[in-house]
Amino acid sequence: MLALTSGDPSGIGPEIVAAALKNPDVLASARILVVGPESVRPAGVETYDPSASAQDVSWAASEDDRAWTLGTATASGGRAALAALRAGVDLVQAGCAQALVTAPVCKEALHLAGERVEGQTELLARWDAADPYEMVAEAGDLRVMLLTRHMPLRDALDAIDGDGIVDHLVLFDRALRAQGIERPKLAIAGLNPHAGEGGLLGHEEHRTITPAVRAARQKGIDVGDPRSPDMVFLEGARGDYDGVLALYHDQAFIPLKLLSQGRGLTWIAGLSYLRMSPVHGTAFDIAGQGVADPENLVHALQEAARRVRSGQKTR
Amino acid sequence: MLALTSGDPSGIGPEIVAAALKNPDVLASARILVVGPESVRPAGVETYDPSASAQDVSWAASEDDRAWTLGTATASGGRAALAALRAGVDLVQAGCAQALVTAPVCKEALHLAGERVEGQTELLARWDAADPYEMVAEAGDLRVMLLTRHMPLRDALDAIDGDGIVDHLVLFDRALRAQGIERPKLAIAGLNPHAGEGGLLGHEEHRTITPAVRAARQKGIDVGDPRSPDMVFLEGARGDYDGVLALYHDQAFIPLKLLSQGRGLTWIAGLSYLRMSPVHGTAFDIAGQGVADPENLVHALQEAARRVRSGQKTR
Repeated sequence: MLALTSGDPSGIGPEIVAAALKNPDVLASARILVVGPESVRPAGVETYDPSASAQDVSWAASEDDRAWTLGTATASGGRAALAALRAGVDLVQAGCAQALVTAPVCKEALHLAGERVEGQTELLARWDAADPYEMVAEAGDLRVMLLTRHMPLRDALDAIDGDGIVDHLVLFDRALRAQGIERPKLAIAGLNPHAGEGGLLGHEEHRTITPAVRAARQKGIDVGDPRSPDMVFLEGARGDYDGVLALYHDQAFIPLKLLSQGRGLTWIAGLSYLRMSPVHGTAFDIAGQGVADPENLVHALQEAARRVRSGQKTR
Repeated sequence: MLALTSGDPSGIGPEIVAAALKNPDVLASARILVVGPESVRPAGVETYDPSASAQDVSWAASEDDRAWTLGTATASGGRAALAALRAGVDLVQAGCAQALVTAPVCKEALHLAGERVEGQTELLARWDAADPYEMVAEAGDLRVMLLTRHMPLRDALDAIDGDGIVDHLVLFDRALRAQGIERPKLAIAGLNPHAGEGGLLGHEEHRTITPAVRAARQKGIDVGDPRSPDMVFLEGARGDYDGVLALYHDQAFIPLKLLSQGRGLTWIAGLSYLRMSPVHGTAFDIAGQGVADPENLVHALQEAARRVRSGQKTR
């Protein structure tokens, strides 16, 4: 069984969840237990009954004060999203569900609710006491781990350090092995144009990144010297590598969003269970209009089910 | 007639030029005068004869000491590339050719030859006394102008200033109008993840970029507030904008190379004539092996011919 959280009720989460639950391919791939506010439970979806064995789709109501407003960040929406997520994690950790799939939350709403966290990734890692951990995003054959996540670009540049690179490469290698890739072939993006062009266009490559890559190779990781950022994601997408380590958010998400075609996924390397998420956000601007496309969530559910069936781990 | 330079003779330039000259679609689209070292003139391509009117393809020999080595940057290769480029520009400026198409040069070789320049763009702009000017790169429907070109990422961040943004937006607008787009719709990428997310993820957007965009709008430019970098190129590629201003090299070239599929082009806004180039480099690693793909150069030649026929200007 998969646990599925409905996300921030002010966003498109509830409507894409409702649409995904009607998708025959989703229903064929796994039993699904949704965790979310009772007020957004779709008609026809039964309340979860732990003693019933035949519920293909069911709903476990999580806390909700119904004070949220569609299309905007509120403390109430943040609290509802947090309650659903916590309940979803409890179900997975108790062994009732084999993986967690999450609809989007809104960082600002989490903050308004008193949870000063960067996003779901950090929250889930904290609740799981996962250390080390890191987000991995996928689009087709391209798998990208992020060295730095949601921070100003200048801060990301300052956060690039050799030890962090080695640790991330080791974590990535281990997570891909846990997924069944026997000898993961990794790449790392440079920071500067053409990966610094031998020092002409920047020094981070030869001062920090290349030495870290060599240290990782000493630990048995199959990774080459930093590649030109405008080539490495193209190379990853055509299957040259099992994974690419990106140095900052947009270096990863510019190519991922171009390639994902509405089917991008993220998971968390180092977490004790599989958590899968679509790459889009709450889309407050279209929430409640019935135009949100459930395809990405559908793909996340199918892919989570496939990985659970094949026994893949994330650490 | 199009002038075509053969680029650095140590790279793939001569072989892709030779292949392009055999392409029937290229031959059908324009008369071509190649400028390059006599030593790389393909068999069957006649020497240029200004008094002959019926040469569909001809070759004007430029200076060459033949001391270059295939597959490596040398002063000799840089000198040969410079001589061909200078002769090509002379042909266009004299009115003998209506546009210039250039095979790749190597920056390191130019430096070895004593020309300390960032690349062909800067050299051509200097020779043309073009001011302002800027490189524009295209992949399908996505057109991207660069605010900063080949420099370390840290330097690019420091080089982002409001006046530069306004000047670039004005230049881009004017160049697109000269191409026949009546009311160009422009966008600008933010610098930080999610364009700073209202200041949570960086301040450059609200301190520098947004005020500059407003100043540009005051000048009649149709441009919105900074967009999330991981969305704006996707939006540009699906035709939401006529042009996107990118803030740094990889922000532009990661999406451009993913989308170009071997057909990416660059031109220079503000130059007095049309100069078109493929997006790839000299590819020293495969030079002379006969495996280089001429498709990008073929596309550049066809597209230059099309724009000359339709009377498009670049300023």
